[in-house]
Amino acid sequence: MEIVYLDNSATTKPCKLSVEYTLAALNEFWGNPSSLHLLGFEAENKLNEARQTLASFIKAREDEIYFTSSGTEANNTALFGAAYSRQKRGKRIVTTKIEHSSVLEAMKKLEDDGFEVIYLNPDKNGLISEDDIKSAINQDTILVSIMLVNNELGSIQPVEAAARAIKQSGATALLHCDAVQALGKMQISPQKLGVDIMSMSAHKIHGPKGVGALYIKKDVHIKPLILGGGQEKGMRSGTEALPLIYGMCGALKALPNTEKQLETQKEIWQYAKDTLLSTGLVEINSPDNCLPYILNISVMGYRSETLLHFLENEGIYVSSGSACSKGVGSYVLLACGFDKKRVDSALRISFSRETSRNDIDRLKEALKKAAEKLRKA
Amino acid sequence: MEIVYLDNSATTKPCKLSVEYTLAALNEFWGNPSSLHLLGFEAENKLNEARQTLASFIKAREDEIYFTSSGTEANNTALFGAAYSRQKRGKRIVTTKIEHSSVLEAMKKLEDDGFEVIYLNPDKNGLISEDDIKSAINQDTILVSIMLVNNELGSIQPVEAAARAIKQSGATALLHCDAVQALGKMQISPQKLGVDIMSMSAHKIHGPKGVGALYIKKDVHIKPLILGGGQEKGMRSGTEALPLIYGMCGALKALPNTEKQLETQKEIWQYAKDTLLSTGLVEINSPDNCLPYILNISVMGYRSETLLHFLENEGIYVSSGSACSKGVGSYVLLACGFDKKRVDSALRISFSRETSRNDIDRLKEALKKAAEKLRKA
Repeated sequence: MEIVYLDNSATTKPCKLSVEYTLAALNEFWGNPSSLHLLGFEAENKLNEARQTLASFIKAREDEIYFTSSGTEANNTALFGAAYSRQKRGKRIVTTKIEHSSVLEAMKKLEDDGFEVIYLNPDKNGLISEDDIKSAINQDTILVSIMLVNNELGSIQPVEAAARAIKQSGATALLHCDAVQALGKMQISPQKLGVDIMSMSAHKIHGPKGVGALYIKKDVHIKPLILGGGQEKGMRSGTEALPLIYGMCGALKALPNTEKQLETQKEIWQYAKDTLLSTGLVEINSPDNCLPYILNISVMGYRSETLLHFLENEGIYVSSGSACSKGVGSYVLLACGFDKKRVDSALRISFSRETSRNDIDRLKEALKKAAEKLRKA
Repeated sequence: MEIVYLDNSATTKPCKLSVEYTLAALNEFWGNPSSLHLLGFEAENKLNEARQTLASFIKAREDEIYFTSSGTEANNTALFGAAYSRQKRGKRIVTTKIEHSSVLEAMKKLEDDGFEVIYLNPDKNGLISEDDIKSAINQDTILVSIMLVNNELGSIQPVEAAARAIKQSGATALLHCDAVQALGKMQISPQKLGVDIMSMSAHKIHGPKGVGALYIKKDVHIKPLILGGGQEKGMRSGTEALPLIYGMCGALKALPNTEKQLETQKEIWQYAKDTLLSTGLVEINSPDNCLPYILNISVMGYRSETLLHFLENEGIYVSSGSACSKGVGSYVLLACGFDKKRVDSALRISFSRETSRNDIDRLKEALKKAAEKLRKA
């Protein structure tokens, strides 16, 4: 039975070019980029190539890119680094209730350390309102952190509005954006968004797990999280993970044209929505204007976990929410105001450029079969 | 010209099995270990296999192993985690002047945060004395951090003595050991050493760059550095870097018998020492009883950097010190009391299981040629 993988927001299969690049770094460019000899220089060159590739992909400067070990580390570095380096100016931080756990857990720690964190609520469509952002930001605000695409719903947040709100408020707040679910899927440029710091990850775009990156705007200085040999211009010490960094470079180079691919994904997304609705079994949780890589549904009357396992047996892989919050009811859907029953029966279907209409048909048939065979919860 | 790579303490070439394992994780076991479906479970199984392999290699329990992105991150996590979780018991930390930069830079930050850090001096042989350790530890000491093998000299530190000293002092200090340069090269077991926390890295043992690990003794609790989805039992969040973690597993499995290999290395080390001394050009900086993977020499009258580049042109790669402190005079050698001239002409020759006598002969001939061609500094 051929598998149908619809859990691409959890992780994607590394693409051919990404694997080739990782392999080249392991077998050929295996020197330590800090070594002062040819093997070191060769490795450093590849590191620079990767940095340049990512920089040009997001229309940033090469010296604004810092590689990390994950989106999580990127988020932690951004938040702790920004907050601790600005704490003398103020203690107020603004974020949302639907951020990734790596943002929310960092915020909890910042609260423990005496920062005041304002958590904005999303509306029923999983959107933070521009007005709420505007009213939350005041002169004492030192940091605003808003994700670009929510990882459970796909809803696209008004990050540019946050940038404008900061400017209007007169606050010197830094704007951080977790763009992990957006990179490679929609046109993003931190400059256009107006963000100071942006987090990215490779394994959501068919790159390897274990590498991410931070964009930090030139002349914005934040404290590093990991200290030591001063790699990444002192922002992130530790011998650079070249096999993965170069693998991320391969993944970026293999990405299809973003805009064109987005059109294709829109069709797939709409087809999936129509097809699943036609079963009469589901409610759609994702808003219509979401990034068409995520379709969050609730199969009313059935528990997510039960469905997940049923689908697994049919060779279809989806998730009940974020892979990073194993089995716990989605705080994102709850924050949006969905009732518990709907949350408990939620499934996240997440697409990649390899998803076909046939995959959706398989999912539809499997859901119909589930409804016949499974007892309602 | 075949290259002679004698910079194995900076990094090693990934071995065949390690590359194979990385590749398998990229192509076959590419699920997110946190995903609640078959692809996730398969990835989790491989993660467990890697954890088990490392645990059994250092005679620890599986639940005492936590994967990190590097030795640097392991050291940072250990030190910050231990210090911040014990700061109510005391503020005194004991370490040495010859630790890796990832320990020393973390210590600087801890000093900024109000901790008192005692830095012990090594003797001429690069050794910290047991007496000094004993006198430095008092009732207020909450953390002692001593490396097992110094990365520039190869000197083996009396870690067991530190464990005994802590016990005798009655302090509740945690003992951390940076074992990055020791893993796979000498028999190590944290239990036998008496350490509570131990840092390791893959890329010094023919594994990939970008993965390390922490041993944390059962029932010892320290604060995590990276927060989020709660991976690694909450000690290290972020999607697990399975390609590299599994690559580390491959590297561990490919290691030859430690004791037997140590005998071979002793012969190579002695051969190198005798051969290089026979040129009349060098002084030996490493002590006789060091770990025979590192031979630190000074080629008197010539500057390290000049020699490094000359040797590079001969296809021979060595380093002037730690790869993590590009071009700066060695603080390790200075702390040992070597004069500036000797420090400025130091070269670190570091071996692997692939180093041959022929490699040493090539180095000898190249040094003789250098002495003929280069002007003394």
